[in-house]
Amino acid sequence: MAKVNQNYLQLQGSYLFSEIAKRRTKFISENPQADIISLGIGDVTRPLPDAVIASLHAAVEDMTDTKTFKGYGPEQGYDFLLQQIVEHDYAARGINIQTDEVFVSDGSKCDVSNIQEIFSNDTIIAVTDPVYPVYVDSNVMAGRSGNYSKLTNRYENIVYLPCNSDNKFIPSLPDRKVDLIYLCYPNNPTGMTLSKDELKKWVDFAKANKCIILYDSAYEAYIQEDDVPRSIYEIEGAREVAIEFRSLSKTAGFTGVRCAYTVVPKEVKAYDEQGNEITLRDLWNRRQTTKFNGVSYITQKGAAAIYSDAGKEQISKLVQYYMNNAKIIREGISSLGFEVYGGVNAPYIWLKTPEGFGSWEFFDKLLQTANIVGTPGVGFGQSGEGYFRLTAFGSLENTERAIERIRNIKF
Amino acid sequence: MAKVNQNYLQLQGSYLFSEIAKRRTKFISENPQADIISLGIGDVTRPLPDAVIASLHAAVEDMTDTKTFKGYGPEQGYDFLLQQIVEHDYAARGINIQTDEVFVSDGSKCDVSNIQEIFSNDTIIAVTDPVYPVYVDSNVMAGRSGNYSKLTNRYENIVYLPCNSDNKFIPSLPDRKVDLIYLCYPNNPTGMTLSKDELKKWVDFAKANKCIILYDSAYEAYIQEDDVPRSIYEIEGAREVAIEFRSLSKTAGFTGVRCAYTVVPKEVKAYDEQGNEITLRDLWNRRQTTKFNGVSYITQKGAAAIYSDAGKEQISKLVQYYMNNAKIIREGISSLGFEVYGGVNAPYIWLKTPEGFGSWEFFDKLLQTANIVGTPGVGFGQSGEGYFRLTAFGSLENTERAIERIRNIKF
Repeated sequence: MAKVNQNYLQLQGSYLFSEIAKRRTKFISENPQADIISLGIGDVTRPLPDAVIASLHAAVEDMTDTKTFKGYGPEQGYDFLLQQIVEHDYAARGINIQTDEVFVSDGSKCDVSNIQEIFSNDTIIAVTDPVYPVYVDSNVMAGRSGNYSKLTNRYENIVYLPCNSDNKFIPSLPDRKVDLIYLCYPNNPTGMTLSKDELKKWVDFAKANKCIILYDSAYEAYIQEDDVPRSIYEIEGAREVAIEFRSLSKTAGFTGVRCAYTVVPKEVKAYDEQGNEITLRDLWNRRQTTKFNGVSYITQKGAAAIYSDAGKEQISKLVQYYMNNAKIIREGISSLGFEVYGGVNAPYIWLKTPEGFGSWEFFDKLLQTANIVGTPGVGFGQSGEGYFRLTAFGSLENTERAIERIRNIKF
Repeated sequence: MAKVNQNYLQLQGSYLFSEIAKRRTKFISENPQADIISLGIGDVTRPLPDAVIASLHAAVEDMTDTKTFKGYGPEQGYDFLLQQIVEHDYAARGINIQTDEVFVSDGSKCDVSNIQEIFSNDTIIAVTDPVYPVYVDSNVMAGRSGNYSKLTNRYENIVYLPCNSDNKFIPSLPDRKVDLIYLCYPNNPTGMTLSKDELKKWVDFAKANKCIILYDSAYEAYIQEDDVPRSIYEIEGAREVAIEFRSLSKTAGFTGVRCAYTVVPKEVKAYDEQGNEITLRDLWNRRQTTKFNGVSYITQKGAAAIYSDAGKEQISKLVQYYMNNAKIIREGISSLGFEVYGGVNAPYIWLKTPEGFGSWEFFDKLLQTANIVGTPGVGFGQSGEGYFRLTAFGSLENTERAIERIRNIKF
């Protein structure tokens, strides 16, 4: 008799976005004339850079001729792309990463949810709160979470590290034993960053406690300030304790094209039951070669084009377009007296809701009085209650209109 | 202290293809003039169909304009592709499959290795022997295999169903309790099929024993004979017990483009710890929406083109090209007195090695005397010892030359 993975039944419903959709739909049905502006979704809207388009077309043409046709490629990614990644994303910043430490994939969502497979079942994970839900859910599915409590909105075996205005969104080091620590900087959803000194504390903690840091830097391209690390490998010792996830989704508008990569330096080790050191790079390589068949050749060719001179200039303009929106939102909302975070090195603006408004009350107020859809902070975790996320991924015109509308709301 | 998934350490090395590469490299270094023909690899070599190429180019153009640009798509696949799949692959054969029972992915290797996640850890799996190694390895990684025995070349908790010339490559029903049964027809590596009557026995067995059949039909497009089921859903009752995996890799030359799909009918149920029925379609949907972000829009547009009139004709020609090679190999080898299987409804030819030759001895003989690389059957499991796989995915010219060379070998 086939039995299901009971851990799946511990998952909480995809409450956040379905509830947003429900309230939005209800509002539209009652107000069919409303001109809704969405600043809620974390998805890009601008076209792909020209250099990428040209490279995609050329790669499609390669598939028309037996001489240039490509079948199965290396599961880890083609060398032409690995070389570009290593050279431009790392060597150019003085970081030593080898091509055989880089694993190209079809998305960071896959990588950050699959990475837990190579660790033991009794691994204790730590996450910041609020947090990108995939880190938690992938561990719930694997049976590491323990029971969910409705009262606390938390799982009993997961270590939550609150981030709020009291600690300036800088999480404290864990006060109990943990094995895996998920960090995402620039942060989704808060848009906040860690300085090099702050990140150094985490690397030192991981080394001292033989933990592994899973470092999600999907928003790295949005960093504007000098003291903010682009890669965790800028921090001394990180090659021994950190796995880094990068994505082209937000960097180059690839959310619909699907390309990302994961870096596992050969020095990163964990332990088997006998206490022997095991090289995680080799386990991840085994995972990927067994369960994955590589990224589309066409996609990888498109990805490689972002490292050309033209490509670099074009993705820089793309990022600046969204960061201009971020500035408009941040300064606009700030001028209205809101406490505002993020939006400086990230496309996300995280605001404290006004006195008397929880995250969902603020959502309703914004929808009903300004016809704007944002994301309630509590949807990312209990510490997000009383906060609200706006994103910079809309058009310039809509972003400006949205701020004007918010200006006219009476709280 | 981070500990590894100990189950990974139970995995046997990717012995087969690395050993093939090693012997090939050694031979070439000693015989630099040798003109090697590979009939070993299960990868396509012909260009993509014109209809696919045109659709890929058009999809790339969609990404140049904000009006047609696509960001994140549905994790399950775009409706334009789901509709085509349901209509052409199922409804046209009188099979009722709904679009919300189809999940588009970036490859069957991912799907067949991820599907085990939705089942409990104590699930007993059954596989045919010889077998595609991914079914076994993904379960080893999940901790379901027990220990590996070098003596038997098998894992202790996996139920192996031998397929050899004695049983005409038709596996017997399991003689002990199993929960999940992996079947692949047309079969990789043997190229053999099950008739509708034979497959009906498996569906009935699964219903009677509350098992689930995981039916891999990656080679469905190569079926030539009428009595061979194209889909397990041609069999009465299969909607209650079977999950089907399909791929465009071999159907349309997509090994480098990456598109496949999995069908999970809503009637397929497994049980929770309390004995309640759980709908597997919903668990798989949860798995995919949590850990996967959908297939490239461009790829999906290319995939949809194979269902156009022109696309259908072009993929039919592609399949016939390879099947002509299969015929040349099958008839050529057969005329030399070999016992030959497969190659009628599949691009694989499975031959019995001559008296006194194990799989690897035959490999060496073929490499050294005819400069041909094939795949030793024992690499697919213990029951493959004494067999050898040749594939029809080469060029016509090389296929003909290979047969000529084999004709001249003296055994």
